[in-house]
Amino acid sequence: MLSIAVIGAGRIGQIHARNIAAHPNARLAGVADPDAAAAARLAETCGSQVLSLDAAFGADAVLIGSPTPTHADYIERAAVAGRAVFCEKPIDLSADRVRSCLAAVQRAGIPLMVGFNRRFDPHFAALKRRMDAGEIGRLELLTILSRDPSPPPPAYVAASGGLFRDMMIHDLDMARFLLGEDPVEVFAAGSCLVDPGIGAAGDVDTATVSLRTASGALCQISNSRRATYGYDQRIEAHGAGGLLRAGNVTATTVELATARGFSTDPALPFFLERYAAAYGAELDAFITAVTTGTRPRPDGEDGLKALLLADAATESARTHQPVRL
Amino acid sequence: MLSIAVIGAGRIGQIHARNIAAHPNARLAGVADPDAAAAARLAETCGSQVLSLDAAFGADAVLIGSPTPTHADYIERAAVAGRAVFCEKPIDLSADRVRSCLAAVQRAGIPLMVGFNRRFDPHFAALKRRMDAGEIGRLELLTILSRDPSPPPPAYVAASGGLFRDMMIHDLDMARFLLGEDPVEVFAAGSCLVDPGIGAAGDVDTATVSLRTASGALCQISNSRRATYGYDQRIEAHGAGGLLRAGNVTATTVELATARGFSTDPALPFFLERYAAAYGAELDAFITAVTTGTRPRPDGEDGLKALLLADAATESARTHQPVRL
Amino acid sequence: MLSIAVIGAGRIGQIHARNIAAHPNARLAGVADPDAAAAARLAETCGSQVLSLDAAFGADAVLIGSPTPTHADYIERAAVAGRAVFCEKPIDLSADRVRSCLAAVQRAGIPLMVGFNRRFDPHFAALKRRMDAGEIGRLELLTILSRDPSPPPPAYVAASGGLFRDMMIHDLDMARFLLGEDPVEVFAAGSCLVDPGIGAAGDVDTATVSLRTASGALCQISNSRRATYGYDQRIEAHGAGGLLRAGNVTATTVELATARGFSTDPALPFFLERYAAAYGAELDAFITAVTTGTRPRPDGEDGLKALLLADAATESARTHQPVRL
Amino acid sequence: MLSIAVIGAGRIGQIHARNIAAHPNARLAGVADPDAAAAARLAETCGSQVLSLDAAFGADAVLIGSPTPTHADYIERAAVAGRAVFCEKPIDLSADRVRSCLAAVQRAGIPLMVGFNRRFDPHFAALKRRMDAGEIGRLELLTILSRDPSPPPPAYVAASGGLFRDMMIHDLDMARFLLGEDPVEVFAAGSCLVDPGIGAAGDVDTATVSLRTASGALCQISNSRRATYGYDQRIEAHGAGGLLRAGNVTATTVELATARGFSTDPALPFFLERYAAAYGAELDAFITAVTTGTRPRPDGEDGLKALLLADAATESARTHQPVRL
Repeated sequence: MLSIAVIGAGRIGQIHARNIAAHPNARLAGVADPDAAAAARLAETCGSQVLSLDAAFGADAVLIGSPTPTHADYIERAAVAGRAVFCEKPIDLSADRVRSCLAAVQRAGIPLMVGFNRRFDPHFAALKRRMDAGEIGRLELLTILSRDPSPPPPAYVAASGGLFRDMMIHDLDMARFLLGEDPVEVFAAGSCLVDPGIGAAGDVDTATVSLRTASGALCQISNSRRATYGYDQRIEAHGAGGLLRAGNVTATTVELATARGFSTDPALPFFLERYAAAYGAELDAFITAVTTGTRPRPDGEDGLKALLLADAATESARTHQPVRL
Repeated sequence: MLSIAVIGAGRIGQIHARNIAAHPNARLAGVADPDAAAAARLAETCGSQVLSLDAAFGADAVLIGSPTPTHADYIERAAVAGRAVFCEKPIDLSADRVRSCLAAVQRAGIPLMVGFNRRFDPHFAALKRRMDAGEIGRLELLTILSRDPSPPPPAYVAASGGLFRDMMIHDLDMARFLLGEDPVEVFAAGSCLVDPGIGAAGDVDTATVSLRTASGALCQISNSRRATYGYDQRIEAHGAGGLLRAGNVTATTVELATARGFSTDPALPFFLERYAAAYGAELDAFITAVTTGTRPRPDGEDGLKALLLADAATESARTHQPVRL
Repeated sequence: MLSIAVIGAGRIGQIHARNIAAHPNARLAGVADPDAAAAARLAETCGSQVLSLDAAFGADAVLIGSPTPTHADYIERAAVAGRAVFCEKPIDLSADRVRSCLAAVQRAGIPLMVGFNRRFDPHFAALKRRMDAGEIGRLELLTILSRDPSPPPPAYVAASGGLFRDMMIHDLDMARFLLGEDPVEVFAAGSCLVDPGIGAAGDVDTATVSLRTASGALCQISNSRRATYGYDQRIEAHGAGGLLRAGNVTATTVELATARGFSTDPALPFFLERYAAAYGAELDAFITAVTTGTRPRPDGEDGLKALLLADAATESARTHQPVRL
Repeated sequence: MLSIAVIGAGRIGQIHARNIAAHPNARLAGVADPDAAAAARLAETCGSQVLSLDAAFGADAVLIGSPTPTHADYIERAAVAGRAVFCEKPIDLSADRVRSCLAAVQRAGIPLMVGFNRRFDPHFAALKRRMDAGEIGRLELLTILSRDPSPPPPAYVAASGGLFRDMMIHDLDMARFLLGEDPVEVFAAGSCLVDPGIGAAGDVDTATVSLRTASGALCQISNSRRATYGYDQRIEAHGAGGLLRAGNVTATTVELATARGFSTDPALPFFLERYAAAYGAELDAFITAVTTGTRPRPDGEDGLKALLLADAATESARTHQPVRL
């Protein structure tokens, strides 16, 4: 039984704490959060206890679900303590800070997994597995469409690092995951079409990115901060032998036919519903990696590379020039 | 070039006349109809001429699209004249009259094809072809769902022979076509749920039929005189090796996604749209059969057997007893 | 916290025991089974204990998942002990035995819920909710297609009460649930097409049923003991205002496109996967009913009526005559 | 009756000649082609005659379906003769030549329509109509996926002007058509992944383009010269109020279910099948415009602007820099 302490009792910490509590090979060591009441509430619903931050680093592993600015510090504390770490993305908004943090991780030799949960979504994971099995041959064109149901408040946007680092970073990681190689050219375009407040905060809410790899594979990503029909999450992989795609998930298969046509449910509302299974599978992969001594993926290097792509996209959108990597 | 005269300038005659005029191996000899103005209009739009009824039987072949009570007489006139005949379904509402008519056809040795157009629908024809190619092995369960967009006027119903002979006869022919053997047991249930005027005219507007063949294959058919979402025409064939089904056809592939969900077009409105390609393919099969001297199908025997099934269903719905055939 | 003892540590008992253990308002009192090792294994994976049969009736409620011949006896013991009961379908294969058992339940005034799990399937439940909300107006034609992935062994068949009581009873309950009234006429047809061993055991493996209600609504059900493409579970409700249907569920949304066309996953393999959510929702409904003192549904009367329909279908298939109810 | 002469008896000329011959308001004046046998064959199947090039310009209108290098010259001859012109895309591969040609058209005041047939595809036209009707509000993100079934021979490629001018020009016109404004920034990426012979001929076979308009709307286009599953032609328009998309068209609705899953037909093979209806509607629009004296669209300006976008994309792919327009 791997004992895991959860740091951060917010939305994402709650998901992970519950999944740890329900996992057959793990034990929730406890919950740490500066908001003692939030920590107590979460600990209680999971049949666990509140921990001080110091005590949290006494567990076999720590799961970091606290605000982004704390991530790198906590990873380094875990490195000093010799604990395995699962950290929500991003490690930090500064690539330099990520690098120094990863150096500490490497020196300590601790396992570090970064929370790119979509790699574990059953639909996208099946798509990847089938690509790897050769069902479409060599990948040539990858299309990733990702749209949030509604825009975050401008205040959130201001501290988020911008759309490319906050939202598209997931798609950039997915691109690396599926392409199987690193992009060498990034071109981005961004607009503020959804909420002027987002533009006033210096960010965009609608964006596209083009990627090219050394072998010539091409990838297109599009993001919007608003989709009236739910959380739109789709991938298409076009290869020499065919196309594999994974579509949106709906709550039910029910279809209504009337004079207006045939209609089905909208897409699931947001990530809590859409990626519920992904969070469980992700945690399971972490626990398996740590308990079997294998290297967890996505790891710190994956976290860094996705951030560098997001940085490149941010710069490209600002300068209207492609960025070479 | 096979010269074909069209008898009947109504809705169905118009379809056939235009298809004949456009067919590379046929020539529209002309149009005959007691309504001279209707005949003239149709002849003009097809670049052809009005014919007297007598003159119509001078063409190589006659296509009978006149009202049902005239069908058998016209077939017999064609038999006397030695002309090939394409006759819209049904040959007659009386099985005895059909038998005497078919005897005349047989004596004369003329080709007779009956207009069960759905056998030539590209979707259903592909389903049949793939069944015959063994894609699902032996057929075990057949499901036919057929619903008209809106009920006919009660006056039409009164002269129609009833739902089973007027509407379901198409599905009964399709059942024979796909089952590849004749049903030996028919059980029908009918209700008047759509329009009380149909009940007052002695008919039903909602009906189900169960068929069983000698080999044990089972078939279910359901009919309604009303479907708000278009002309609903579907078939499912469940076999030992899998399932083949043919679904509804829509005008476009356009899909709208909003907070109400994902919605597509309704089904095509009615038979003119849904079976446009079927009418063309049906005519082509007739022309090919006549010009190559092969036996056209569906033929008079098919017409009779579908009528006998419709008669059995009518009786079963009335008596609440199955009918053995 | 409602304490619930599970009687029967087989496949279905395992599902329920795990769901009880995970439910926030219930506690798994323990597991009773003549197979002590099976009971111990299940108890351990749920963090619970083995109970004697006597001790099981000491919990607040008992969940009966033991073999069918024991159901009625255990319900009666629970009635004597004054415990709430959740019993898997069927209560008994004999309608008379069911009646005497329900009389005991009524005398004791205990809550009894019967495990027609499909009423709680999110897809079918949504369809029902939307029908009740008036989305398609009055229901006129109901189509239920239900096909198992592969036939049970003939030995199972011999003790099962036959396809109509063992398999179609679920569809007959669903028909009652959706029609909102009881059928007054049942006509069934059955064939042995899948496995001659099933025929040798006196049963059929392919069957259709036609139902008619007093108000004239019609229903068609078809069953097969084999579907190569997974567990086929579909419902279509055709009403005055439109059609609502619930389709098959697949493991992922992944689609492959090649020269062979576009292909998706097969249907989920069998009831454990297809109805996992339904079992959870069903248990939740039982716990809510018992703890709030409301009457659980489906109840003993629903269990009896579905059995009477299955009996009628069995007789109809044997005699080739409809049965009036 | 508008008399129309067809210049060019090749694949595209055949489509148009047959559509003219079948059109109720037009008459096929004849067919002109340096290959006299080809002209004769086409004329015969349409019940028309062979024309000299000079005679062709005597008809009310000329339809230019000859090789690209002849287009501008023929348009100018028609301008001199005062005839209406329908010209297949592109007018010329040189923007300067197009400009001089359009100047001649303007001086002569003749109607000129350019063959961007996809605007008339029933699926894409319905999508446009519904966007214009406000179903998704303001357009924010446009995605166009367009893939040919198999690559052309390298010899064709060498004379084609390259993928962006030969193939993507259709998508660039569609982008202008749907965006309702002109892109101001073009970024393209191209690779040779399908056929090394295409690379040897100096072209790419896989390409992506990003467009941005002055108002900030973003568009992504992807092209491949090979799709194993048919001619892949899809559009998605994401707006403030929802998403409209038009998908691939299949020959039938037939679906097969086996242990491998549920599979439908591949996409229609290529443009002759996919755009058969579009060619008819396009011709009808031309005839209506000419006979009613309204300005046909897409016109010469549309042809020029699509070419300028294709030129910009070609340059961008070569220089790895965006091009401002």
